[in-house]
Parts: sequence; structure tokens; C-alpha cells
Amino acid sequence: MDLPAALQPLEFLLGTWRGTGEGSYPTIPDFAFTQEITFVCYGKPVLAYTSRTWASDDGRPLAHESGYWRPAGDGTLEVMLAHPTGVVEVFYGEVTGQRVEIATDAVVRTRTAKEVTAEHRLYGLVGAELMYVEELAAVGEALQPHVSARLQRVQE
Amino acid sequence: MDLPAALQPLEFLLGTWRGTGEGSYPTIPDFAFTQEITFVCYGKPVLAYTSRTWASDDGRPLAHESGYWRPAGDGTLEVMLAHPTGVVEVFYGEVTGQRVEIATDAVVRTRTAKEVTAEHRLYGLVGAELMYVEELAAVGEALQPHVSARLQRVQE
Repeated sequence: MDLPAALQPLEFLLGTWRGTGEGSYPTIPDFAFTQEITFVCYGKPVLAYTSRTWASDDGRPLAHESGYWRPAGDGTLEVMLAHPTGVVEVFYGEVTGQRVEIATDAVVRTRTAKEVTAEHRLYGLVGAELMYVEELAAVGEALQPHVSARLQRVQE
Repeated sequence: MDLPAALQPLEFLLGTWRGTGEGSYPTIPDFAFTQEITFVCYGKPVLAYTSRTWASDDGRPLAHESGYWRPAGDGTLEVMLAHPTGVVEVFYGEVTGQRVEIATDAVVRTRTAKEVTAEHRLYGLVGAELMYVEELAAVGEALQPHVSARLQRVQE
């Protein structure tokens, strides 16, 4: 399948990535995790995205998220994410070479969700590795670094 | 893996389902599609959900959506969905036997998305088949039937 032209700026993300990361936040103990991310083109000019993490200490499942990355064709993109924690998010962002920066425009929470108010993420291909850092504003804390990881492509 | 107790009311949804459906709306021609839905437990008391559809006439990809179904333990549930069309949704609903009814509480759209304002869905296990009907309010039209399908479980 030929990649739709609008997806070419995001081609460097395609595939399945696996690696490890670390997390911290003022309200919780530091933690380390294994992560698997997939970016798939299913034929439309959008990437289907999923991410899963597992605790490094005992392998228990941690975060999960899924959604879509939709380039606008002018170097900007929209990202729509759903979380099992009762949160959905819309991000706007920019693609610059092999680097994507996105920030939440809207965060919607169910009545049982924790108070997440904003997120900012930076993804970049560094050598053959996909690295990202995520900043989070939640439970009354200001936007600040929350998780980061370094991933290797395990499948095209 | 034992199913978390909170997920037992949704156990009838687990697995991969495949089948066919039909769609209509005042603003578009009627259409027929093949659909695959998956409901997976990854260890937490929530179901990870994905759905894909393909046009029956030529197999081109149509809709895609992903997210999470999270039972509250009292017969109610929350559903968080992301769509490649620039829409994210939060639904509230109820589980009654082998029937789930959900309706949007919040619909958030990006600046490039179509005007979707509300959705209502009813899923039910009828014999060995998963059937659903979805009503949609969008592009100025009132909430009305949009798609329905009948699916068979192809994988546990």
C-alpha cells in the first residue's frame, strides 16, 4: 500500500516501537516502565496509534492509550486520544523534520476520572530511536515533566 | 488471566467480532460495510476497544475508532472514544444483562472535524451474535439511526 501523501511527514513514526522509560510526579513515587507503541496506516491519511506500558518491577499493566494522529498537510497535526482512566484529549501540534510537538487543546474527563488539565508532548527520532517526553498538569499541579522513554523499532 | 470482577458484566463482549452492517444518513448515500470489533482485557478493570469498517462494494477502509469501556461496578459504565475524523467522545451508559446502552455526554471536535453533536448506541448479544444500532446527530440533523450491524465472534 502506498502511503497517502499527507502522511509522509509522519512516515518516520510508522511501525511498532518497544523500549523503556521513567516517570515521576509530585503526588506519586517514581516509576520505571516498559512501553510498546504502534503507529499504523490503515489506508486513510491518518495514523492509528496505541501505547501500552508495564511496570519494570513486576510487569503489571500500567498505562494504555489509543487514538489517531491526523496531519493537516501544512506541517500541523491534530491528535485525538482516549484513555482508560476516563479522559479524552484533543491535541494540536507541529511536525518539524523528524520531531513532533503536541499540546492539549481540550481535555474532557468523566465523573470518575482524576483531574487532568493539560498535557504537552515532544516526540523525536534520534538516530534510530524514538524518544519522547511528556509534561502533565493534573490534580492541582502545574504542567511539568511526567514521563519519558526511549524506544527501538521492532517491526516496520 | 482471571477477569477482574468489575468486568464480569461485560464478559459477553470479549473477543474479536466480524460481520456486516448498513448505514444511512440524510446527507449521504446509503452504504453497506464489513466490520471488525475487538474487546480486550489487558489486566485492568476496563475493556480496550477498537472497531474498523470497510465498504462492502470495493473494500476501501471506512470508519475506525478506538477507546475504552469502563464499568463503574453499579451497572453503569463510561466509554471513552477517539475517532480519526477529529472527534473524541465520552459516553455514559448502562449494562442490563447482555445489553449495553450508551449516550454521549461530551463530544469534542477539532477545527477540521465535521459537526458531530451527539451519539446514542445500543449493543446486545442476540443468540450468539453481537448486534448494535447507532444513532447520530451531526451536520445540523437531529439524532437518528445511522448505522447498524450484526457480528459473529471469530476469536475468544
